[in-house]
Amino acid sequence: MGKHSLKEKLLAGYDGALDKDGISGRRLAERLAALSEIGRTGDGGVNRPGFSDKEKEAKRQVMEWLEEAGFEVRHDGAGNVIGRLKGESDAPAFAAGSHVDSVPNGGNFDGPLGVLSALEVAEAWKDTGFVPQVPYEVIIFSEEEGSRFGAGILGSQAMTGDLDREKVEGLSDKEGRAFAEVVEAYGSSVDNFLGAARNLGEIGFYAEVHIEQGKLLEAADLPAGIVKGIAGPAWLDVAFHGSAGHAGNTPMAGRRDPLVAAGRFVSEVSSLPALFSETAVATVGRMNVSPNGTNVIPEQVELTVDIRDLDKETRDGLVGKVRETAERCAADCGVNVDIRLASSIDPVPVKEDVRAELREVFGEMDLNPMELMSGAGHDAMILGRHVPMAMIFVQSKDGVSHNPAEWSDLSDCLHGVHLLKKFAERQMEKIAGE
Amino acid sequence: MGKHSLKEKLLAGYDGALDKDGISGRRLAERLAALSEIGRTGDGGVNRPGFSDKEKEAKRQVMEWLEEAGFEVRHDGAGNVIGRLKGESDAPAFAAGSHVDSVPNGGNFDGPLGVLSALEVAEAWKDTGFVPQVPYEVIIFSEEEGSRFGAGILGSQAMTGDLDREKVEGLSDKEGRAFAEVVEAYGSSVDNFLGAARNLGEIGFYAEVHIEQGKLLEAADLPAGIVKGIAGPAWLDVAFHGSAGHAGNTPMAGRRDPLVAAGRFVSEVSSLPALFSETAVATVGRMNVSPNGTNVIPEQVELTVDIRDLDKETRDGLVGKVRETAERCAADCGVNVDIRLASSIDPVPVKEDVRAELREVFGEMDLNPMELMSGAGHDAMILGRHVPMAMIFVQSKDGVSHNPAEWSDLSDCLHGVHLLKKFAERQMEKIAGE
Repeated sequence: MGKHSLKEKLLAGYDGALDKDGISGRRLAERLAALSEIGRTGDGGVNRPGFSDKEKEAKRQVMEWLEEAGFEVRHDGAGNVIGRLKGESDAPAFAAGSHVDSVPNGGNFDGPLGVLSALEVAEAWKDTGFVPQVPYEVIIFSEEEGSRFGAGILGSQAMTGDLDREKVEGLSDKEGRAFAEVVEAYGSSVDNFLGAARNLGEIGFYAEVHIEQGKLLEAADLPAGIVKGIAGPAWLDVAFHGSAGHAGNTPMAGRRDPLVAAGRFVSEVSSLPALFSETAVATVGRMNVSPNGTNVIPEQVELTVDIRDLDKETRDGLVGKVRETAERCAADCGVNVDIRLASSIDPVPVKEDVRAELREVFGEMDLNPMELMSGAGHDAMILGRHVPMAMIFVQSKDGVSHNPAEWSDLSDCLHGVHLLKKFAERQMEKIAGE
Repeated sequence: MGKHSLKEKLLAGYDGALDKDGISGRRLAERLAALSEIGRTGDGGVNRPGFSDKEKEAKRQVMEWLEEAGFEVRHDGAGNVIGRLKGESDAPAFAAGSHVDSVPNGGNFDGPLGVLSALEVAEAWKDTGFVPQVPYEVIIFSEEEGSRFGAGILGSQAMTGDLDREKVEGLSDKEGRAFAEVVEAYGSSVDNFLGAARNLGEIGFYAEVHIEQGKLLEAADLPAGIVKGIAGPAWLDVAFHGSAGHAGNTPMAGRRDPLVAAGRFVSEVSSLPALFSETAVATVGRMNVSPNGTNVIPEQVELTVDIRDLDKETRDGLVGKVRETAERCAADCGVNVDIRLASSIDPVPVKEDVRAELREVFGEMDLNPMELMSGAGHDAMILGRHVPMAMIFVQSKDGVSHNPAEWSDLSDCLHGVHLLKKFAERQMEKIAGE
């Protein structure tokens, strides 16, 4: 899909009545299309891994737009971009944002919509001569997806001071490059990365617009919804170790084949979430077989299980069951297994008073204020541990995400921008009054 | 393991009484060690894919030794090296050899032992002033392992004219490079590759020494054994196709996860061979998940199943059962599957009169003439369809192969050389008398 055709597809049939209060559907469509060109893949998706040149290029493009819109723009040692618009007072800022990195061959909305919605709010203020009461920040967080190091939301965790040196120094990417090497190639260092931790008193509120990546809003025929909480993911790294050997001359009986154990494990894992709750999920998305030769019994299989639920207790129960299952599958196949909890993030609820305020904003736009949980982790989950936080979901077509077919109608995206703008204006008034 | 330490490990405790009739344990150990340096990996294995610079370097080293030993040396369009030693007559040659390519991180004996045993026989003749009655050839076949294109024994099939243009032009390697591109980079072309087909009337007999890659000789405490037949492998390419999606926001119920199907499949495949025979084996050694991101439900999983048995009927029965299993696993998980028979080679028996002659040679050396089947495919399997063929197995420690830990004691290797030499001398006499 070319830049031109993404833009045209977005503009086709969108509700022009949403071009009001300074918000422009055309500008948002053009910018979504421009970002879709950076790291574009053959089938119209994008490939912008965290700390890649493509992620950097996307950030530079947004920085340019921010400067044109009157923001002071800087980036911190973690590569997070912080655009700051002066307000009438020096009170803590209202911040909004998301990320521009993607999974391998990901979609054009996951991340960019949140960044561009936050920018579009400021463009609307500029066009209507509105000056915010308090500073307004647009933030692009680095490496949200975790597709590079097997550990995501790194930029937001650096900003909130939730990372320690030991953890980041232990990370390495698929090519075996250490975290330090990657951030140095990116123009930073581990010291500067950890130095990105901010005085969070500067942020009075954080809000994020994001595509739902699920099917609930579509089923309810709603353009947007209120996130009531974010299910924190736990990532288990599992490595099965067996004995390599010749595929032809090693009788079946004496084998210690780690792929047979891993296969049984993946198959069993898919039926475990239902034992815990209706919302729990467990996924093996990444698996590497070694040495990966057709006529060689594998020596090692390593994979990561992504485990989520809305409730910490059931989520952790499922993590325990997945561990047990890995151990049993390994034992049954006579292979060894190493299991390591690579990351574990607690679910984060959105406060009731924030949701009440959002419901009022939805009401102003004559929208049914549907509340739903986020199964995916987001930068808002990290910020939400430290500062008041809100998230607005925009309808996803067919719930498809992390895929070139990811889609949200421009009208739905514009509803998200209007909701963010109205909510920000109310919230800034509150911060100014405190 | 350094060159030095491999040589020393080989020479430590070998039976010096085997240094007789011109055969030298030290020379064989030095040459095995020299080849182990070419493409050496961190843990003492080798990485010499077919048509790589490392495979070429290993061939050049052997060509040098062949020339020093008085051979006329050439290579054909498939990269096969043919060293020819003149005999007393111009009758068809007695040929012996093997390959020098390896699986990824393979061992130091699989292939090189056969080539160097064939060379050592000629060195012994040179040192003792023996002139063979008929020409003697040492052959290094290209790309035996199949780790590059997912289709092996290419060099021997080119020599016997068993490849067709359509088949080779359809091959591509892991990096997506077409067969034509790879052989051109190697200095040949598809035309020259196919032109390697030889007048097989020039070869009166083919013999190959190879490590057993199994545990039967070790269990029987025998240095070497007689191969009674070679189980031909069938390779099934299986690709499961599902729907990618976000690992957090896609409920378990609606998923079409191809890795869940593949996992169940691999696990079930391991129990199918026992339904057919005691000797049947089925292995998934290679599996690639795409896009392979931790928080992305996979879109595609492709793998190859290596299926072997000593009897064509049971082998083909197992192939059918594996197909059925793939289809059922795909259907149960709501994903699609493509199955393709990538290659299928019929089992090849060794003729009774050849085995009788080998038993006599074993008897001359006071060795129990144990006969065993080869579960692995070999160049001898391809040659054996066209010319009389014999194979001698040398004991493998723990049956380990395709692995840096692959090992055969030098005394056992030297038994293999003596057996090959005695057998070649008898067989050349026969060819000369025909």
